[in-house]
Amino acid sequence: MRGEIKGLNEECGVFGVWGHVDASHITYYGLHSLQHRGQEGAGIVVSDREKLKIHKGMGLVNDVFDEDRLDRLTGTGSIGHVRYTTAGDSDFVNCQPLLFNSQTTSLSLAHNGNIVNASALKHQLEHQGSIFQTTSDTEVIAHLIKRSGYPNLQDSIKNALTMIKGAYALAILVEDALIVAQDPNGLRPLSIGKIGDAYVVSSETCAFDIVGAEFVRDVQPGELITINDEGMHIDRFAYSTQPTICSMEYVYFSRPDSDMGGVNIHMARKNLGRQLALEAPVEADVVTGVPDSSISAAIGYAEASNIPYELGLIKNRYVGRTFIQPSQALREQGVKMKLSAVRGVVEGKRVVMIDDSIVRGTTARRIVKLLKEAGALEVHVRISSPPIINPCYYGIDTSTTGELIASKKTTEEIREEMGADSLSYLSVDGLKEGIGRSKEMTNCGQCLACFTGEYPTDIFPEADHPYDKVLGGK
Amino acid sequence: MRGEIKGLNEECGVFGVWGHVDASHITYYGLHSLQHRGQEGAGIVVSDREKLKIHKGMGLVNDVFDEDRLDRLTGTGSIGHVRYTTAGDSDFVNCQPLLFNSQTTSLSLAHNGNIVNASALKHQLEHQGSIFQTTSDTEVIAHLIKRSGYPNLQDSIKNALTMIKGAYALAILVEDALIVAQDPNGLRPLSIGKIGDAYVVSSETCAFDIVGAEFVRDVQPGELITINDEGMHIDRFAYSTQPTICSMEYVYFSRPDSDMGGVNIHMARKNLGRQLALEAPVEADVVTGVPDSSISAAIGYAEASNIPYELGLIKNRYVGRTFIQPSQALREQGVKMKLSAVRGVVEGKRVVMIDDSIVRGTTARRIVKLLKEAGALEVHVRISSPPIINPCYYGIDTSTTGELIASKKTTEEIREEMGADSLSYLSVDGLKEGIGRSKEMTNCGQCLACFTGEYPTDIFPEADHPYDKVLGGK
Amino acid sequence: MRGEIKGLNEECGVFGVWGHVDASHITYYGLHSLQHRGQEGAGIVVSDREKLKIHKGMGLVNDVFDEDRLDRLTGTGSIGHVRYTTAGDSDFVNCQPLLFNSQTTSLSLAHNGNIVNASALKHQLEHQGSIFQTTSDTEVIAHLIKRSGYPNLQDSIKNALTMIKGAYALAILVEDALIVAQDPNGLRPLSIGKIGDAYVVSSETCAFDIVGAEFVRDVQPGELITINDEGMHIDRFAYSTQPTICSMEYVYFSRPDSDMGGVNIHMARKNLGRQLALEAPVEADVVTGVPDSSISAAIGYAEASNIPYELGLIKNRYVGRTFIQPSQALREQGVKMKLSAVRGVVEGKRVVMIDDSIVRGTTARRIVKLLKEAGALEVHVRISSPPIINPCYYGIDTSTTGELIASKKTTEEIREEMGADSLSYLSVDGLKEGIGRSKEMTNCGQCLACFTGEYPTDIFPEADHPYDKVLGGK
Amino acid sequence: MRGEIKGLNEECGVFGVWGHVDASHITYYGLHSLQHRGQEGAGIVVSDREKLKIHKGMGLVNDVFDEDRLDRLTGTGSIGHVRYTTAGDSDFVNCQPLLFNSQTTSLSLAHNGNIVNASALKHQLEHQGSIFQTTSDTEVIAHLIKRSGYPNLQDSIKNALTMIKGAYALAILVEDALIVAQDPNGLRPLSIGKIGDAYVVSSETCAFDIVGAEFVRDVQPGELITINDEGMHIDRFAYSTQPTICSMEYVYFSRPDSDMGGVNIHMARKNLGRQLALEAPVEADVVTGVPDSSISAAIGYAEASNIPYELGLIKNRYVGRTFIQPSQALREQGVKMKLSAVRGVVEGKRVVMIDDSIVRGTTARRIVKLLKEAGALEVHVRISSPPIINPCYYGIDTSTTGELIASKKTTEEIREEMGADSLSYLSVDGLKEGIGRSKEMTNCGQCLACFTGEYPTDIFPEADHPYDKVLGGK
Repeated sequence: MRGEIKGLNEECGVFGVWGHVDASHITYYGLHSLQHRGQEGAGIVVSDREKLKIHKGMGLVNDVFDEDRLDRLTGTGSIGHVRYTTAGDSDFVNCQPLLFNSQTTSLSLAHNGNIVNASALKHQLEHQGSIFQTTSDTEVIAHLIKRSGYPNLQDSIKNALTMIKGAYALAILVEDALIVAQDPNGLRPLSIGKIGDAYVVSSETCAFDIVGAEFVRDVQPGELITINDEGMHIDRFAYSTQPTICSMEYVYFSRPDSDMGGVNIHMARKNLGRQLALEAPVEADVVTGVPDSSISAAIGYAEASNIPYELGLIKNRYVGRTFIQPSQALREQGVKMKLSAVRGVVEGKRVVMIDDSIVRGTTARRIVKLLKEAGALEVHVRISSPPIINPCYYGIDTSTTGELIASKKTTEEIREEMGADSLSYLSVDGLKEGIGRSKEMTNCGQCLACFTGEYPTDIFPEADHPYDKVLGGK
Repeated sequence: MRGEIKGLNEECGVFGVWGHVDASHITYYGLHSLQHRGQEGAGIVVSDREKLKIHKGMGLVNDVFDEDRLDRLTGTGSIGHVRYTTAGDSDFVNCQPLLFNSQTTSLSLAHNGNIVNASALKHQLEHQGSIFQTTSDTEVIAHLIKRSGYPNLQDSIKNALTMIKGAYALAILVEDALIVAQDPNGLRPLSIGKIGDAYVVSSETCAFDIVGAEFVRDVQPGELITINDEGMHIDRFAYSTQPTICSMEYVYFSRPDSDMGGVNIHMARKNLGRQLALEAPVEADVVTGVPDSSISAAIGYAEASNIPYELGLIKNRYVGRTFIQPSQALREQGVKMKLSAVRGVVEGKRVVMIDDSIVRGTTARRIVKLLKEAGALEVHVRISSPPIINPCYYGIDTSTTGELIASKKTTEEIREEMGADSLSYLSVDGLKEGIGRSKEMTNCGQCLACFTGEYPTDIFPEADHPYDKVLGGK
Repeated sequence: MRGEIKGLNEECGVFGVWGHVDASHITYYGLHSLQHRGQEGAGIVVSDREKLKIHKGMGLVNDVFDEDRLDRLTGTGSIGHVRYTTAGDSDFVNCQPLLFNSQTTSLSLAHNGNIVNASALKHQLEHQGSIFQTTSDTEVIAHLIKRSGYPNLQDSIKNALTMIKGAYALAILVEDALIVAQDPNGLRPLSIGKIGDAYVVSSETCAFDIVGAEFVRDVQPGELITINDEGMHIDRFAYSTQPTICSMEYVYFSRPDSDMGGVNIHMARKNLGRQLALEAPVEADVVTGVPDSSISAAIGYAEASNIPYELGLIKNRYVGRTFIQPSQALREQGVKMKLSAVRGVVEGKRVVMIDDSIVRGTTARRIVKLLKEAGALEVHVRISSPPIINPCYYGIDTSTTGELIASKKTTEEIREEMGADSLSYLSVDGLKEGIGRSKEMTNCGQCLACFTGEYPTDIFPEADHPYDKVLGGK
Repeated sequence: MRGEIKGLNEECGVFGVWGHVDASHITYYGLHSLQHRGQEGAGIVVSDREKLKIHKGMGLVNDVFDEDRLDRLTGTGSIGHVRYTTAGDSDFVNCQPLLFNSQTTSLSLAHNGNIVNASALKHQLEHQGSIFQTTSDTEVIAHLIKRSGYPNLQDSIKNALTMIKGAYALAILVEDALIVAQDPNGLRPLSIGKIGDAYVVSSETCAFDIVGAEFVRDVQPGELITINDEGMHIDRFAYSTQPTICSMEYVYFSRPDSDMGGVNIHMARKNLGRQLALEAPVEADVVTGVPDSSISAAIGYAEASNIPYELGLIKNRYVGRTFIQPSQALREQGVKMKLSAVRGVVEGKRVVMIDDSIVRGTTARRIVKLLKEAGALEVHVRISSPPIINPCYYGIDTSTTGELIASKKTTEEIREEMGADSLSYLSVDGLKEGIGRSKEMTNCGQCLACFTGEYPTDIFPEADHPYDKVLGGK
């Protein structure tokens, strides 16, 4: 049943605006601050009340948009998307938002997440005459909405969403409204803010600070929220919801200046570091973190362990898209890229190296080697999350089980392979405790599937699909 | 009923290959030689027998493809497209070929022409749940094919084609075949050639010379031809056909080194020039043509009138896409672009200026002014086609009736407006005679609608569409 | 003594403006119309009366300049340059104009031609402490001017020019004047025009038409002309002058819409074609010319021989810089570029193919093959200039003697090698007669060195240079 | 006498290789790790033993070089340069290295620093006939070397260097050697390393780690070191040297993973932070640093003060060259760029904000505002260096005295202007103590001129220049 799951998992960022005279610029800056969620493609659709206009392309937000293109996207409503995926320029068609124009109305969608029953739904839709121009789940959602056929768009969307399983933070733009929805588990984050009278929505709250917006509320699991000139109308398409936000958003993915479920990401990561110091202490001279995502945890570990925190690893800021990779010969002679170990900091020292997670283990092995070559006496690797032993079906590209080193090897085997003097992971309880989310938001759980294998949704729908009668909509 | 006709008419070029190990490169060179048919966008889809791969983009063939991208398009079958249309980068989605992937098969289409009942068909399809991502007629054809639902693709295509009215030279690529079709009137050209065992198809035969192919035959009106590993299979979807190829292909659009319906374009144009000299002689010292499309007619006029043919107008070859337009102030001071009159040729001379056609009249007026400023004593404008008084609904952007100067003004008024000393058009009979097509191919007429208003197809289908029962296909 | 001559000969275009509020734009359009004289690099220097500003780069004028850069080049005086040379991006430093800033004044130079004693002068200058950043002759001229050291710039320039031998059309810009000079033989063209009160100078008069200027006069051999706010002041640095303008400017290099020495280039070429028809007639059905430079001669040949002129060869307009070259395999299968023979014109015909000149003979061989493959029964090659048997030392890249096919082989051998049915060149007398320059301008000779070996200047100065005493200037 | 000092001060990076088969790639990676020292231009010159080849351009190392260009720069010796300066594409001519070709030899120079008597020297050189194509000091050095005229290059260089005053770390490449020199005060850093038998030189040691080189030694003030196939030969052109390395290299400019004078930059900065905590303690909840340069000092302050170090400010990593600046209207609505304050960290907290230095004060004011808007209760600004009250004449762009806020206002006035609750600088003694350089290297002082006004060299040479007799060299 693996075929049910797309090989091409992706993490993305979604942003939207309603009621601002310069919606496209606001969206540009918003997407900019979500750039870490996807660097492969970007797009913006605007509504000028009469029609939708689009521009999108492969590359960073900066590459895709220039002043001129942005100025042409006049309108007061907007949705935008940044996309992470495997390379390949033919993937242009998969860039979002998708835009569908019928003779009377338009419909645009931007989506972060992954639909686990997309394949079954697509099969069914094709049987009924639908044709597909992308390989994106989002196109499936659009077909389902269109075929629902209710006179009211919101009803059609609600009908469509009851058919799809998986993770989705969804932003929909039509001529006269911005509509957002979150899956019944709230797996992917989506928040609402305000700039004066205008509304903004964003995958992460860090975008609110950049555009001068105030945080209003998170979109709740199962909610369908319509924002139009009359304000914000909160509706619901799912009632039996079980909030299980993705833990990796806290551990690795989100920006440290975002808040998620009321918890600041930097503070959460620092707590994970503190927790890790309690669970896995070690005698050492220096704590250092792998930049940029493990810095917060390293600070926390240093504080709790009373070992000085130092910049033992430096990231080269200018390694861009066009960087010329060193040849094999030069690599063997020691030519490095991206990361350097700081000899003046680690030479002759026992170093605690904090990393947020290990997927294949190759990066950690390389960093341990860098530190030892720079003179570190000992390197103690501490991971601020538990071993990842299960793939993610909800939009993070943690690959197949076979590539997850922790699913095949013991911690001791991994340690030996990476040449570390010791290796410890944070426990699952430590992770829950560290994030501290449950304390502040009583009804808010976390998805821990990649660590525990307990997936909050069906991930293998049965072969004979019960959707036939449903797909026709009303 | 104007809404029935798309505002955005377009002329394009189509090319295809089957059975060549380097199909994408062959298509690249083929599209290159069709570049004059469309400079706004280009695309290639290849089949490697297992799947279809695509690359397309805005701009010239040279801009869209580089060595690297072409090398990645490995496959032995291919279709390509160059597109002319109004500007606007959001039009990327309208670039062709279109590619549709279902879970089991793929379907790609490239199309030259215009479907006159596209709007009615789209309306119907949307009513049945189809959603559209482009504003292109081609997407309508794809939906119709998909919904036909015959087990055999050719049957589905034939079913779809019976529903559409208008002009189309169509190339379809699937994993294991290249399929081409031409509308029942044969309004848009499409020819078949061979390179060794491989087949090529092209909007114009000039592409055959470039890729080293031999001409085999023209696709006939109403034919559906399948080319696969077993060779070429000729079928037919329309039986009552009335060949009426577009006259403007001869007059203006095609390259002089192409043959169309067995007639070489340069020779046809030269004949039009000769004919024009007979119909509208004038005392003069020099004949000159507006480069590049009117050169052949000017040579013919000179020959028949015994007035020397000279290069009285020079086109600036380096005026590219990024050329900086002169400001109004500089234009008023006489800064020119693109065309110069050759003082050394025209000064003190009575000049016959040959142009192939007049749409709005602004270009001809500018050229008369150039010639006079360069010292021409008299300028006699001779047009190697009749006055255009009706819009084209078959894919050439001759705009609306209101913009056609000859539909509003008399020849004398136009002459006066453009400051010419005399102005004459070729007669409709002269045009038919000049092209000489009817003589060589007895059953081959011409579309003269833009001159005469006699359209070879319905152009205003009735409001209540009889397609409802048909659209479901089998 | 070959080392005395630069291996890197070059042909270029020079343009200048004085007294126009938008000097940089005027220069942009002027350079544009001189683009055929050099496509490798372009540059503009402007004077705003207080200082000189520069922008230059590799590529076409269009590539090097955009609106923004042009707008920043505010000023009322300007010189510009387009450059042809061998490839290599490190050649950027050789792009012109060159700009030299001292603490008190600036000096900028643009130069078309070749200094035959550049090497000796450079040797001497280095001995005296000069250092060189380019390999351009122009830098030598600048050093000589600077070292002349007269209080008056014009005197310094005159002193410098007496030291250099060779071909030069020179434009010099300083804060308050535009100064132009031509070598004592007038080998390279340079003309002066006016736009209202503003002056323009240009390598060819075709640029005057483009910018709306009226022709005033040609710069005469040995003249030094200063244009400033007080008007045009004509001075002279050489008195014993012998006008011998380059014949190849008429035959091949200049644009057909330029006049040179009072003779229109198209008309001159047409006369060469007529002359060729008289000298080398042939029974044939069709005359065709190799586009673009041989079209005029072909028209003349057709007229004089009464054989119809046809478009038998078509140039592909869209073969740009980024064009992907066909692989060897594809070339062997017949994939062509740039030029196509028009089957419909030449099939079954005896063809006269006019070319303006033959250097290595490879292009002509390829074209004969194209015509035969397209069905030409016979191909008679007629060359509208005499055999080139000597290298040019004055700035046209006709390479070394060893590469000139006519210096090594008989006409019959060349004919056989190119597969033509007959081959004839124009005679030297026919060339002189055809250009007809001597008739209209009694004191105006032509440089025929590449045909006859009679060089109008010393080209091998003696080894012991007599410049030592001179170089210190005043 | 202000004219004596260039308005355009610059900081740069220099790198060189001798004896490595892939010198250009090594230099590319080296320059990459020096990119923080200059982002405006980059260039590489290589020697293949017979000649020097160059490529340079405006922009980042990544923008200027691609695989192709680098591959063409074959050679075993190389020098490279990254350049910081004000914008302006006409500055291309000022990009380094400069390359001078005479008929027999070549000479290339790359220079970091500033020559304080450049203007006087240039005046003199022009008087003697030199002409200048750049506004760079480096061209002056080249002229001086050339005019020295000793048969031995090293003697000529030494003669030239005795004439120049100021700061320079200089790398010179000729066909058969790499030569480096440092000014008698050692104001700009330059170190030597080895990769196997090959030598490398670099402005900072961080480049050694990247290219796999081992540190050998720093170039000492007044040394002239020749590296050729026979190894490294250490010579000296100045004997009365007074080492005073630039303090700002420690405070702000260098990368934290570099060592300078035996001191690691990160550790030095951390010590400055610790020192600052002792000198200027404050009651607070959180310490945060302005990324990236103030992070180390912030960690040190936090450690010494026992206040937690947090990520209170986040830098947006994707703000590139093409970033679209927010309009005034959007800025007023709160649209931010580059830096965000982390609400979750600073809200309701008393924050210590560490910055490394203050020039105009505008950035600090903006950051205080960000922190307050994000809810900080108090913001205490601590600067890890003393007030900058004097301009730098040695290559750091600290502008004119008038723009230095600390030269015009009291600390209390500055505090008020920036809206901070308190403001303290590190003392000059604290700076010396913190860097700790004097302890480890007894004869190694620091340049503190920007803080104290005590310049280690003459900066205002007298008006009548005593160089006349010297400039002729031998």
